[in-house]
Amino acid sequence: MRVLSLDMGGTHIGCAVVEDDKLLATGDISFSGAQSLRALLPVIEQELRRLTQSVGMLPSDAAGLAIGYPGIIDFRTSTILSDIGKYADGPGIDIGGWSQKTLGIPMAIENDARMALLGEHYVGAAAGQDDVVMLTLGTGIGGTVMMGGRLVRGAHAHAGSVGGHFVVDLNGRNCICGGIGCAEAEASGSTLPDVARKWKGFAGSSLNNGDPTNFKALFEEAAKGDPVALEIRERCLHVWAANVVTQALAYDPEIVVIGGGVMRSSDVIIPFIQNYIDNHSWLVWGKPRILPAKLGNNAAFLGGVPLMIEAAQLRAAKG
Amino acid sequence: MRVLSLDMGGTHIGCAVVEDDKLLATGDISFSGAQSLRALLPVIEQELRRLTQSVGMLPSDAAGLAIGYPGIIDFRTSTILSDIGKYADGPGIDIGGWSQKTLGIPMAIENDARMALLGEHYVGAAAGQDDVVMLTLGTGIGGTVMMGGRLVRGAHAHAGSVGGHFVVDLNGRNCICGGIGCAEAEASGSTLPDVARKWKGFAGSSLNNGDPTNFKALFEEAAKGDPVALEIRERCLHVWAANVVTQALAYDPEIVVIGGGVMRSSDVIIPFIQNYIDNHSWLVWGKPRILPAKLGNNAAFLGGVPLMIEAAQLRAAKG
Repeated sequence: MRVLSLDMGGTHIGCAVVEDDKLLATGDISFSGAQSLRALLPVIEQELRRLTQSVGMLPSDAAGLAIGYPGIIDFRTSTILSDIGKYADGPGIDIGGWSQKTLGIPMAIENDARMALLGEHYVGAAAGQDDVVMLTLGTGIGGTVMMGGRLVRGAHAHAGSVGGHFVVDLNGRNCICGGIGCAEAEASGSTLPDVARKWKGFAGSSLNNGDPTNFKALFEEAAKGDPVALEIRERCLHVWAANVVTQALAYDPEIVVIGGGVMRSSDVIIPFIQNYIDNHSWLVWGKPRILPAKLGNNAAFLGGVPLMIEAAQLRAAKG
Repeated sequence: MRVLSLDMGGTHIGCAVVEDDKLLATGDISFSGAQSLRALLPVIEQELRRLTQSVGMLPSDAAGLAIGYPGIIDFRTSTILSDIGKYADGPGIDIGGWSQKTLGIPMAIENDARMALLGEHYVGAAAGQDDVVMLTLGTGIGGTVMMGGRLVRGAHAHAGSVGGHFVVDLNGRNCICGGIGCAEAEASGSTLPDVARKWKGFAGSSLNNGDPTNFKALFEEAAKGDPVALEIRERCLHVWAANVVTQALAYDPEIVVIGGGVMRSSDVIIPFIQNYIDNHSWLVWGKPRILPAKLGNNAAFLGGVPLMIEAAQLRAAKG
């Protein structure tokens, strides 16, 4: 099956032509934040036409367009429910109609982290596993779930896509989601600069180099022994581990897959979380194995294939 | 359908004969903690024979024996996986064999809080709702879930029964479950005496009356304006509210039902939690309504009926 996949972020859109478990072509559209999605649609069309042409096909030769979107998505109605302003006009836009009219193919949309989990389940770290939690540690924290081989979506499409917003510290930081002390507020790429700047001793730390602190710098300076970097790294690891404990209690997975750019430091992250859950979770059947994601930025592209299959099943069931 | 129901606690066992949505007879077996369950079985038999006789039936006239048990239970295999020592010999005991041999009827066992949710869904606060989270605030905190009209159980029977152990304060208290800072460790009947005793100013508080602090005293003294009682009450409300936010994000319920003895103060508890979730949860479809449980201690008894129906379906499916 050939599918066109979009992996939409806040500052760029990854585009791909996928055939089964292979990427035939990939491209990228970059822009500055909070764009109008409507204004971007012609740019997306152009890029998809370029990519399909490069592999000798038309967009309409694909089975469909699969979109991973950074927000709360109702796959069953192809609706963007919320993206906290990542795109100025995301919720309410009829991408399905646009896809059908412009590309001649049906569209399926899902939360970006859910689509990455679909990819990892299809041909990645979660292949062969039916009960999986996936954490994506990046600008935000994605927390997505599969139980019994199916994505958990819930009555209003929120379940299994907002695990990064589970509370870990009830007296913690305010989050843009409205929550207080959720994992994303405490230890994500978007909040790390502020967390670091306010950390006791930051002024004298090697992290204080004029740039906003990112995870790459944090793990590098911690590895070099900077005491403040070590403290902040420990705090982030602790936040992620506590979040994994709650997700494991909530969904009872066999494995927990962790992805995102910070997993360059998986040699530190995986053992910490595995050790924490082994010792601090009331799971008497055993403990889920903590595994690094395998597909990196390609996970959501590849998840487009199972998503499109599910969308076709859904259309068939609707008659 | 007539069912014999047991609601097993750490210090007593409630017994009932149930017909559909009515209790025909109830009884209670009291004892001190950590008893041998095996030693209690003859006492349970005697009480069930007494109750059935009182309504003119034999135990074997019932469709089955439904047990709500305080621990992690695998309903599908009728196995007690863990009860953290509530009974000295709970896990591993063959209650099903005992029931068949002694009472002549099949047995079904489920986590006590899950069975209470079944009851509230059957004829209580959750009637007609298919997506429900239920919190039971008592000695421990039960957190159970129904999605799409079915109990959430997960791959290893843990999911949807340990919601009281979701982390709310990652630097908080150690829990007997092995967790750190879970809701039960922070604000349950079992930990409240210690939380209160260590609270700043406790010595001068009206809570300091020689007895271990319980929720009844806490809410009474807070209502009278004792400043320490007010602070601790606020902390407990905050813990429960943060736990509800995480459970609502995790399972996407239409309603959250709250039960347990402390709900004598539901006039304080319900508005606090409703207000918290209205303002601090990333739920864009709307917010779940927070409702008090309706059935009190009878919830688990009544849950025995749907549990027995499900057990019969399971036996039929197994062939």
